[in-house]
Amino acid sequence: MARIRLGMVGGGNDAFIGGVHRIASRIDDRFELVAGALSSTPEKSAASAKALGIARSYGSFEEMAQAEAARADGIEAVSIVTPNHVHAAAAQAFLAQGIHVICDKPLTSTMEDAEALEQAVADADALFVLTHNYTGYPMIRQARAMVEAGDLGKLRIVQAEYPQDWLTSPLENEGLKQAEWRTDPSRSGAGGSIGDIGTHAHNLACFVSGLRVESLAADLHAFGAGRALDDNAHMMLRFEGGARGMLWSSQVAPGNENALKLRIYGENGGLEWSQEDPNYLWFTPHGEPKRLLTRNGAGASAAAQAVSRIPGGHPEGYLEGFATIYNEAADAIRAVQGGADRASAMGVLPGITAGMDGMRFINACVTSSAGNAAWTTL
Amino acid sequence: MARIRLGMVGGGNDAFIGGVHRIASRIDDRFELVAGALSSTPEKSAASAKALGIARSYGSFEEMAQAEAARADGIEAVSIVTPNHVHAAAAQAFLAQGIHVICDKPLTSTMEDAEALEQAVADADALFVLTHNYTGYPMIRQARAMVEAGDLGKLRIVQAEYPQDWLTSPLENEGLKQAEWRTDPSRSGAGGSIGDIGTHAHNLACFVSGLRVESLAADLHAFGAGRALDDNAHMMLRFEGGARGMLWSSQVAPGNENALKLRIYGENGGLEWSQEDPNYLWFTPHGEPKRLLTRNGAGASAAAQAVSRIPGGHPEGYLEGFATIYNEAADAIRAVQGGADRASAMGVLPGITAGMDGMRFINACVTSSAGNAAWTTL
Amino acid sequence: MARIRLGMVGGGNDAFIGGVHRIASRIDDRFELVAGALSSTPEKSAASAKALGIARSYGSFEEMAQAEAARADGIEAVSIVTPNHVHAAAAQAFLAQGIHVICDKPLTSTMEDAEALEQAVADADALFVLTHNYTGYPMIRQARAMVEAGDLGKLRIVQAEYPQDWLTSPLENEGLKQAEWRTDPSRSGAGGSIGDIGTHAHNLACFVSGLRVESLAADLHAFGAGRALDDNAHMMLRFEGGARGMLWSSQVAPGNENALKLRIYGENGGLEWSQEDPNYLWFTPHGEPKRLLTRNGAGASAAAQAVSRIPGGHPEGYLEGFATIYNEAADAIRAVQGGADRASAMGVLPGITAGMDGMRFINACVTSSAGNAAWTTL
Amino acid sequence: MARIRLGMVGGGNDAFIGGVHRIASRIDDRFELVAGALSSTPEKSAASAKALGIARSYGSFEEMAQAEAARADGIEAVSIVTPNHVHAAAAQAFLAQGIHVICDKPLTSTMEDAEALEQAVADADALFVLTHNYTGYPMIRQARAMVEAGDLGKLRIVQAEYPQDWLTSPLENEGLKQAEWRTDPSRSGAGGSIGDIGTHAHNLACFVSGLRVESLAADLHAFGAGRALDDNAHMMLRFEGGARGMLWSSQVAPGNENALKLRIYGENGGLEWSQEDPNYLWFTPHGEPKRLLTRNGAGASAAAQAVSRIPGGHPEGYLEGFATIYNEAADAIRAVQGGADRASAMGVLPGITAGMDGMRFINACVTSSAGNAAWTTL
Repeated sequence: MARIRLGMVGGGNDAFIGGVHRIASRIDDRFELVAGALSSTPEKSAASAKALGIARSYGSFEEMAQAEAARADGIEAVSIVTPNHVHAAAAQAFLAQGIHVICDKPLTSTMEDAEALEQAVADADALFVLTHNYTGYPMIRQARAMVEAGDLGKLRIVQAEYPQDWLTSPLENEGLKQAEWRTDPSRSGAGGSIGDIGTHAHNLACFVSGLRVESLAADLHAFGAGRALDDNAHMMLRFEGGARGMLWSSQVAPGNENALKLRIYGENGGLEWSQEDPNYLWFTPHGEPKRLLTRNGAGASAAAQAVSRIPGGHPEGYLEGFATIYNEAADAIRAVQGGADRASAMGVLPGITAGMDGMRFINACVTSSAGNAAWTTL
Repeated sequence: MARIRLGMVGGGNDAFIGGVHRIASRIDDRFELVAGALSSTPEKSAASAKALGIARSYGSFEEMAQAEAARADGIEAVSIVTPNHVHAAAAQAFLAQGIHVICDKPLTSTMEDAEALEQAVADADALFVLTHNYTGYPMIRQARAMVEAGDLGKLRIVQAEYPQDWLTSPLENEGLKQAEWRTDPSRSGAGGSIGDIGTHAHNLACFVSGLRVESLAADLHAFGAGRALDDNAHMMLRFEGGARGMLWSSQVAPGNENALKLRIYGENGGLEWSQEDPNYLWFTPHGEPKRLLTRNGAGASAAAQAVSRIPGGHPEGYLEGFATIYNEAADAIRAVQGGADRASAMGVLPGITAGMDGMRFINACVTSSAGNAAWTTL
Repeated sequence: MARIRLGMVGGGNDAFIGGVHRIASRIDDRFELVAGALSSTPEKSAASAKALGIARSYGSFEEMAQAEAARADGIEAVSIVTPNHVHAAAAQAFLAQGIHVICDKPLTSTMEDAEALEQAVADADALFVLTHNYTGYPMIRQARAMVEAGDLGKLRIVQAEYPQDWLTSPLENEGLKQAEWRTDPSRSGAGGSIGDIGTHAHNLACFVSGLRVESLAADLHAFGAGRALDDNAHMMLRFEGGARGMLWSSQVAPGNENALKLRIYGENGGLEWSQEDPNYLWFTPHGEPKRLLTRNGAGASAAAQAVSRIPGGHPEGYLEGFATIYNEAADAIRAVQGGADRASAMGVLPGITAGMDGMRFINACVTSSAGNAAWTTL
Repeated sequence: MARIRLGMVGGGNDAFIGGVHRIASRIDDRFELVAGALSSTPEKSAASAKALGIARSYGSFEEMAQAEAARADGIEAVSIVTPNHVHAAAAQAFLAQGIHVICDKPLTSTMEDAEALEQAVADADALFVLTHNYTGYPMIRQARAMVEAGDLGKLRIVQAEYPQDWLTSPLENEGLKQAEWRTDPSRSGAGGSIGDIGTHAHNLACFVSGLRVESLAADLHAFGAGRALDDNAHMMLRFEGGARGMLWSSQVAPGNENALKLRIYGENGGLEWSQEDPNYLWFTPHGEPKRLLTRNGAGASAAAQAVSRIPGGHPEGYLEGFATIYNEAADAIRAVQGGADRASAMGVLPGITAGMDGMRFINACVTSSAGNAAWTTL
C-alpha cells in the first residue's frame, strides 16, 4: 500500500518531540515525510529540511498549507510539533485545505484557541489526531479492554501520577530551550506540569477507565523560585459513576525520570501499569495472586497483540507506542479517503474530544487551585 | 541485665496484633511476659494465659493493675492490644499505678478519651509508648536521619500511601472479627481506613520528614455497601514550612496487601521506601543515579545499623521493626528507673504526642470530608 | 506447654550466627536458654553468659554435657554454633548424654569427623537437627509442596546460585574473625565458599526439588590472593531422574549481599525464589502469565501458611525462617519425649542425612575440581 | 544525506526476524529497501515484495545479486535474514559483487561454510556485518565502556544466561515454522539453543568483558522428546587472563520469555544487565551502594548516550537496539565508500570475527558435550 505523504510543522532543531514524531512515522512504514516548515525562519527551516532529507521546505506553515494543497502530489497529512501556542493556527491552516492533522498535545495554549480549533475540526473535511501517545502502549490497550470487559467489576479508585525531576533545578534560567517555553505561560498556556504531563495522566486515566472526570480539587504550586507556572500539582478526582481518584504531576521530584503510572481498582480486581516498564501489566483478580501480564506474552489479550510488533520478552518502548498512533492514523486516513465516516475511522485514536477534555482539565485545575482547591467541574 | 516484667491487656484469642506484640517483646530478650488480662471474660483470659504459658491471669485490666502494683515482683510495664475503644481506660488504670504502658495505635476511639489520656500521661510517673511500629524499621530510621542531615535539602513534596485490599469484599458481614470491629464506629472511632492505617501513613510521613501537617483537604468514602466508616480516603496535605503532599489510605484496592509507601522529595534529592520491601531505601541525589541503600549494607547509616540485628542481605521484617519499639521501650524504662527524665528517655519513641497528632489527624480528616474536602487545620 | 531447656556451645563474642540462633530460639517461645559454654576460655564464657543473662556457664562443652546431664533440671537440647571443626566433638558429647543437638552447618570440617558423627547420631537416644535454615522460609516450603504435588510436571532444570561479595577484599588479612576462620582449612574444612554457602544452595535445591544430585563437575577457584580455599565455585549438576542444573557460589561478586536464588523448571511450569525477597514466589504454569505468590497471601498454600506468623504484606525475614527450624525442633523433641520415633518426629527438618549429603557435596566439589572438573558422583 | 539502497534475502512470510530487520533499517532513516528475494519461490517473493511496497522482486538471491550489481541504482547493501544454512551462499553472492552484507546470526550452519565465508569476506571489497543486535543496546555499550575504563578492576567472573520457554512444548510437531527449522540440524546447524541464543549470550559476554573464552566445558541436552538438537545447555567458561564464568541457554524454562542476562564482576565492582529491562544497568562499586544507571539518565555515559534517541525514562527497546546496528552499518558503509579502510569503519560493529567466534563457540560446545563436558578450547 502506498505511503501517506506527510509534512511537518516545527521540529527543526534539536527539539525532542519533532524527532520522536519522525521516528514514529517511519516505524510501520506508512508515511513518507516530504515537506516541512520546520523552524521559525525560512533559512533555518531549509537547513533542517536538508539535513533530514526532506524534499520541500517552506518558510511558514501558511505557505506550506497553500502550496501543498495546490500540488497533485502534495502532502496528505501534516504533523504539528511546535510549542503549544502555535498548534491552533497551524492546525486550522491545514484543516482548511483538507489536509489531515496529527498534532502534539496539549491541544492549544488557551481555551479560546481550543474552541476555535474545535470548530475548525468540526467544519473540516479532514481528520484531527492528537498524539496522546501513551494510549498507544499495548498494555494500556489491554488494560482498557479488560476494564471494558468487566474484569475489574465496577470501578472504585483511579490513582494516576506523573512525576519527573528535570525542573528540580531552574534550568529555564540556564538557557535550556525546552525549560524556557515549558515554564512560559505565553507559550505553554495556563498549565505548567499539569499542561505538559498532567494532561497525559488525565487522558490515560480516562482512556483506560472509560470514565470522565466530573470534578476535581487541585492544589497547584511552583516550587521553583520565580516560576510562573505550576511545577507540582496535587489533586483529588471524582469520576462520573462514583469512582474517586488522585492525580499527581510533578517536575521537581528527584529520582523520577518519566514516571507516569496508573492504578485502577474495582470491586473485583486491580490493574497497575508503569510507563517506564511498559511491557508489563499487573493484574490482580481479587482474592487471587497477582499476575504479571506481558506484551505479546502468555496473558496478552487481542487488544495488546493487535498493536505489538515483536514477541514477548523483546521489549517495545516509547517509540513503538508512539508509532501505533501514527499507524492507526494512517489506517484512519486511508479509511476516510476510501469513504468511511470520520468518527468510525478514528476508532480509539485520541482526537479533538480528548484535546478539549485536556483543555477543560487544565482550566479546572487552575480554577480550582485559585479557589484554594475548591471542587470544580470539568 | 534483668528482663522487664510485662503484662498484657487483650490479645487473648486469635487476635493478630496481640501475637505480634508478644513476639516483638521476645526478639531482643528484654521482657518477660508474666501477667495478662487477655480476654473479655476471666475464663477466656485464663485459658489463653495457660495456653501461652503466662503465669498470672486476671479477669479485668482494673483488677490486674491493682494486683500487680501491690506485688513486689509485679509487672513493670503493660502492653495494651485491645480494640481502640478500650485503650484509654486501660492505659489510665496502669499509669495511675506507675506501671509503664506500651499501647497499640490509634491512641483511642474518641478525642474526649484521648484528651483524658493525655492528661493522665502528663500526670503519671510512668512512660507511655504508642506502637507506631513502622518507625522501628531500620531504613525508616535512616531516611529520617538523612532528611535531618539535609541530604535532601529543603523538603518540597511528601507522598504517603497505605493501600490494602482485605475489605474489598464485605468481610464484616461474614463473621470475621477483625473486620467487624474495624468497621464499627463504636469500637474503632470516627476513622475507618484513616484510623487503622491512615494514621500510620501520617505518622510515618511526619516521623521521616520531621514536619507537621498544618492542614489537609480530605475526601473520605465508604465503597463497601452499608459501611459506616471510610474504607478509602484521599487527601492533600500542607506541611508547616511549605512542603505539600498527598496521602491515600484504602482497604479496597485489590492487589495491595499492606502497601505502605513513603516518598519524600527536596530541593537536592529524593527518598522512596516501601514497607513490603523494607530492607531497601532508594536515594537519588538530584542529578545522580539512584542508589539502592540496604539495611546493614554498604550505604547503611549509623541510624539504620543501630536498630539492625543481622547483616545486609539477610532480610529483617515486620516483627523486627516492631521489636525495635519494644527494645527501645526497654531502654527507656530502665533509664527512667535509673533516674532519667521521661522526655529524654523516650528518644525517638512514639508516645502521647504522636498519639494526639494521630487523633487530630483523624478528626481533621472527618471534619474536612464532611465539609466537602475543605482545608482543615490539625 | 513448658519451654525446652536449652544450652549453647559457641556464640559467645560478636559471633554473628550465635546471636541468630538465640533470637531464633526465642521467637516462638519454645525454648529457654539456661546454660552455655560460649567461648574458648572459662572466663570469656562466663562474661558472655552474664551479659546474655544465661544462668549457668561452663568452661568447656565436655564439662557442660556432663554437668547438665547430671541435673534434674539440666538442658534438654543444645545449640552448637562454633566454627565447623568443633561441631563433631561437641555434638557427640551431648548426644552421648541423650541431649538433643541443634547444630549449625556444614556438618563438620572433615569427612572423617562426619562419619563418626553419623555413627553417633545413629547410636544416640536423641535428635540431631542441622540448621539448614533456608528450608524454614514459608515460600520454600510452598515451592517444595508444589513440586511434590506435580505443579511443575517432571523436573528438567534446577538453577541454584548463592553469590556474596564480602570477601572481594582480603578481609582475612585485616583482622576480621569471620573472614579468618572461613578462609582457614583447619577450621572450615576443604570447602571455602562451597562449604559456607554452596552447601546451602545444594541443600535448598534438593529440598525443593525432592531430587538428589547424582554427579557434578566443579570448577573451584580462589580469586583472593593467597587464599587456600575457594572463594568462587562454578559447577554443573546431574540429578537422579535426569534433571540437570548449575550451581554458583561466590564470595567475591560485588553487589551481592546474600543473594541465594533458586529456579526450578519442569515440563509444565517454573518456580523462582530469591532469599533477599523471601516473601515472594514466582510461579509460571507453562503458557500462562507469571503469578506472584506471597507468603500468607492469596496464593499461599497450606505448607507456607503453616510456618507463617503474620498476614501477607507484613514481611517475615531471615530470623523467622530460622525460628521455624527451632519451632519444629521443639515439636520434634516433645514428640520423641512423648514416645514418637525419631524419624517421624523429624518430619522435613534437616538432620544428619542432609548433613552427610552436604559433606559429600563438598567432597565431590573438591575432588571434581582437582580433576579439572571431571564428573564426580556424590 | 542520501539513504542507502538496501535489498533483502529472506523475510518474506510471517518470519519474525525479517520484519525486525526492516523496522530496524527504517528507524534512523538511513536505508531505503528497494529490492528483495524474500521467499523460496519467485511467486511468493513477488507477493511479499508487493505487500511490503518493495520495488524490485527476484526469484533467487543469485539472480538478485547479479541484476542489482548491474544497475546504476542497484542496491548498495543487502540484509540476509534466511534460516542459518542459507547465510553463507547468499552472503558470498553479494560480497562477490561488492555489495555490503548485513547478515543475521549465527554465521552459518556448518564450520565449513563459515570458513568459506570468512575467506570471502577477506577477499571482498565490501563490509560484512553480523547482527548481534544485543550489542546495540545503550546500556550494553555503557557496560563495555565501563569495563574498558577499569571501573570494575581486573575481571574475575562472567555469568551469562539466556533462558526462554517457547520450546517447552514440542511446537515443532505442531506446525510452527520457527520451531521446525530451529530444531532441524540441516537448517540450523549443530547447535540448538546454543546456536540460536547461546551465541548471543557468548557474544555479549565477550563484547562487554573485552575477553575471549579460552575453553569451556559444556553439558548439552535435549529435553524435548525426539529433539535432535539441544534445547538446554549448561557450561562453565574459562576466559583468557583468568576470569571464569558460566553460561546457560535454554528454550525449555517456563516463565522466561527472552531472559538474556549478563553479570560481570571484577576486583573493584560489579555490573548486572537484563535484556527484558534494557534501559537499566546496575553498577556496584565494591563497598558502596548499588546504583541504578538509566539510559540517557543521570548516570549514562557518552557510550550510552551516543546510541540513545530519546530522554531517560522514555524506554527504548529491542527494535532501537537493533536499529543501532543498522545505523552504524550505514555509517560504516558511507565511510568505506568515502575511502576509509574496512577495519576502522567497522568500529565496534560485530562482523566476521564475531561470527567465527560464534561458530567456534558452537563447535566447542558440541565437542565438549560429546566428550562428557571435557574442557575444550575455542
